[in-house]
Amino acid sequence: MIKLIALYKQPKDKEAFDEHYFNVHGPITEKIPGLQRMEVTKIVGTPMGKESDYYILCEMYYENHEALQNGMRSAEGKASGKDLMGFAGDLVTLMIGEEV
Amino acid sequence: MIKLIALYKQPKDKEAFDEHYFNVHGPITEKIPGLQRMEVTKIVGTPMGKESDYYILCEMYYENHEALQNGMRSAEGKASGKDLMGFAGDLVTLMIGEEV
Repeated sequence: MIKLIALYKQPKDKEAFDEHYFNVHGPITEKIPGLQRMEVTKIVGTPMGKESDYYILCEMYYENHEALQNGMRSAEGKASGKDLMGFAGDLVTLMIGEEV
Repeated sequence: MIKLIALYKQPKDKEAFDEHYFNVHGPITEKIPGLQRMEVTKIVGTPMGKESDYYILCEMYYENHEALQNGMRSAEGKASGKDLMGFAGDLVTLMIGEEV
């Protein structure tokens, strides 16, 4: 399996971030063709008991690289990317990963 | 489910990193009591086609926060932490996450 990973830094306004992330961005992203599973993890701290620099880790699973590329190039994928850059372009780090 | 997330930056010597990570660190970490599943993802790039700053994402699943804390405090957890700091202390970011 291949996954697109989105790691978000702590937003200044968590309430506004959550509102947009869960009610707008999530529903747009879920419609991307080829997306098999989306796993959202809220970062709640570090093992040292400190607050993390990061807020959310989202993992979007696709069957293979081609499916991921096709998904990102689709109308839904472009809408999700545009929305992402609008509300969290300065907070997000995107990575493509292969499960070992 | 709760997970301990270890995100590693690109090492200078990938071969030496892989050798230690997969043959030494993984086997030590797998023995931690309460660890239910360990998912290792190799970062292979970014959606923009560039190399990522990151190399590996490892997710270690526990039933709840208490199980994670107990695991980290165990002899095996301490051995894993000591090994981690020895070979990748300058590369790793640790986070605790809750699945949404």
